Amino acid sequence: MNDFVFQSPTRFVFGRGYADRIGGEVAALGAKRALLVYGGGSVVRTGLLARVTASLDAAGVGYVELGGVRPNPEVGIVRKGIELARHEHVDLVLAVGGGSVIDTSKAIAFGTSYQGDVWDFFMRKATIGACLPIACVLTIPAAGSEASGSCVISNDELDLKKGVNGDVFRPRVAVLDPEVTFTLPQYQTAAGAVDIICHICERFFSGAGAVPVTDNIACGIIRAVIDAATTVTATPDDYDARATIMWSGTLAHNDLCGCGRASAPTKRAGGWESHGLEHEISAHRPEVTHGAGLAVILPAWMRYVWRADRERFLAFAKGVFDVEPVDQTDEATQDAITYAIDELQRFFVSLGMPRTLADLDLAPAEVDGWLQTLRQNKGERFGELRPLTMEDARAIYLSAF
Amino acid sequence: MNDFVFQSPTRFVFGRGYADRIGGEVAALGAKRALLVYGGGSVVRTGLLARVTASLDAAGVGYVELGGVRPNPEVGIVRKGIELARHEHVDLVLAVGGGSVIDTSKAIAFGTSYQGDVWDFFMRKATIGACLPIACVLTIPAAGSEASGSCVISNDELDLKKGVNGDVFRPRVAVLDPEVTFTLPQYQTAAGAVDIICHICERFFSGAGAVPVTDNIACGIIRAVIDAATTVTATPDDYDARATIMWSGTLAHNDLCGCGRASAPTKRAGGWESHGLEHEISAHRPEVTHGAGLAVILPAWMRYVWRADRERFLAFAKGVFDVEPVDQTDEATQDAITYAIDELQRFFVSLGMPRTLADLDLAPAEVDGWLQTLRQNKGERFGELRPLTMEDARAIYLSAF
Repeated sequence: MNDFVFQSPTRFVFGRGYADRIGGEVAALGAKRALLVYGGGSVVRTGLLARVTASLDAAGVGYVELGGVRPNPEVGIVRKGIELARHEHVDLVLAVGGGSVIDTSKAIAFGTSYQGDVWDFFMRKATIGACLPIACVLTIPAAGSEASGSCVISNDELDLKKGVNGDVFRPRVAVLDPEVTFTLPQYQTAAGAVDIICHICERFFSGAGAVPVTDNIACGIIRAVIDAATTVTATPDDYDARATIMWSGTLAHNDLCGCGRASAPTKRAGGWESHGLEHEISAHRPEVTHGAGLAVILPAWMRYVWRADRERFLAFAKGVFDVEPVDQTDEATQDAITYAIDELQRFFVSLGMPRTLADLDLAPAEVDGWLQTLRQNKGERFGELRPLTMEDARAIYLSAF
Repeated sequence: MNDFVFQSPTRFVFGRGYADRIGGEVAALGAKRALLVYGGGSVVRTGLLARVTASLDAAGVGYVELGGVRPNPEVGIVRKGIELARHEHVDLVLAVGGGSVIDTSKAIAFGTSYQGDVWDFFMRKATIGACLPIACVLTIPAAGSEASGSCVISNDELDLKKGVNGDVFRPRVAVLDPEVTFTLPQYQTAAGAVDIICHICERFFSGAGAVPVTDNIACGIIRAVIDAATTVTATPDDYDARATIMWSGTLAHNDLCGCGRASAPTKRAGGWESHGLEHEISAHRPEVTHGAGLAVILPAWMRYVWRADRERFLAFAKGVFDVEPVDQTDEATQDAITYAIDELQRFFVSLGMPRTLADLDLAPAEVDGWLQTLRQNKGERFGELRPLTMEDARAIYLSAF
């Protein structure tokens, strides 16, 4: 077990109808005036935004609204939020949405306390210092941003999508109300489940050896997500299944599944190869949902690299799909591992996720463009389990068509 | 999944040789002068105390010592610590030890800020308010006190052992260095493993139904502890196994394994029947190690109550020992469940733990005394999965001889 530091300071308030509690939670943090950040029309249409503002009103917390955050959020709206936060003297940023809204809120929260341009942090030209407190009402279990110390923002002008990490912008409180996800479209539910599983896999397939307690937790959460996502595909308003997905999404990304697996205690566990590969796709083609891209990339990555760490992939096959090689031969090992990868992909496809990049209306001719920004973001080699060159990345992309 | 609130604010700093980091961690909390609390001679003998004080010196943190905390710690030393903390104007309590030392430190920390007698909190005559910050270097993975919001103290004059709960006295930072447990005697290692498993079981066997994500995590941690405790029985200096036990002990009691299983979000999950029953034994007979008492009581409790929730016990049998009934008959169900309980007890005994209360040199004639204080502590009925009357408690005690 490698050395690590673990802290999950966010207060998670989890339950049926709990969206109405956000006002009280925000007031308990001492906030007087919040910047209320949200995305498109769904939070308006479902009445969630009205419930949140009523809850703020009841708790005596003022607010100013910033709507219109899009998936793969852009630095432009972050800058707009920072201006608004300064002009309106808000003392907290409240996200009502999924990962895009929460990441936007995080960037606004640390950008407001900085005199320069917020993109400096993403280009490593400045270090994040002070930060407004962040609260959230989660609507899409997927990105795990409600629990994480990470934040990913796109810059359309530069055709870049970049992330920063830090504990200072972990949300102070996250209200998790599974009922608000009953109306989530199947495609988004499925993409969320893929993202959750991928967050666990990125850590599980770090270069470290077995860490039984962490590995058992990781596989246990993946099994729960597979069952629950299958349930909600048939029964979208199954509370327990929705609750399982929501809580799994949080635990998938609060670093619990990385304890003992990071190469250094100051680093996040894993090489994040699939996320690295997928980020380029949705940076160039923002209409691609992150989780849908991952549903294709994660199995493609697994098939390309498994020979570099058979023990890890056998542990995954056993822990998630209860499959073991029938004997000690190489062939049996390969059978067990490819069975597990195939099962994972079959599960993704059963949820309505794409099997190939062509299913996402992408073309092999686009790969060169992805590789160009991948090289800018990651350098000539990246990853841990098996470091990937740009030629490896090209091979993985092309294998996924 | 029942509603819950989860927060694990403690900073866990986990790694090989990390005991030397405590000074820097305490200084980072802004502390200038610590009350350094420890137990018997082992922390002196092993050189750990010298490492801790050297680390404090290097970080410029002053300290005053309070040694001599015994197992099943007594309120007398808590009162002595409070006097010392006030007289010496300490601004942090630093525990170097296991659950007894950490619980003592917690009681000192919240007692110092209170004008009345600290025992008032345990008798529910006062509510815990302010509290000095607490830090710890864990030496015995067992009680989970480094992660928990609970504190148990004995009062010899009144022949009582009572607990309080609260988030305000969760440690701010816990340094977890598995190497310091290499020298832990097998009996204490084993008792710790039992306690860890019991903390998970108390929550797993709450009255709530299945909570797949939490249940998978719970069973996964128990499996890891069983393997690791078996390993260290043969190889006491196996770092990974020691690390597995240590981290499992923390996760067993930071409430992760209770998420969705509590009857109310303000309550801890589970009826804590085995702990309730055992506490009376070690309150009356302080020479009984808590975990050794639990090794007898937990299986006895399970055998007495399993018929009240067959589904839960089947989930335990499958999740921990991978055993399922061969068919749908009552007999097959009973076989699977009793096999799992027997396996759990066989594991405890394989570590050197007692099988019966007689093995602990206890006699059936003592049961009346235990029931008398059990009634004072718990009332006429207690527990959740199957509420226990005093007659039930008597039957469980007697079945364990």
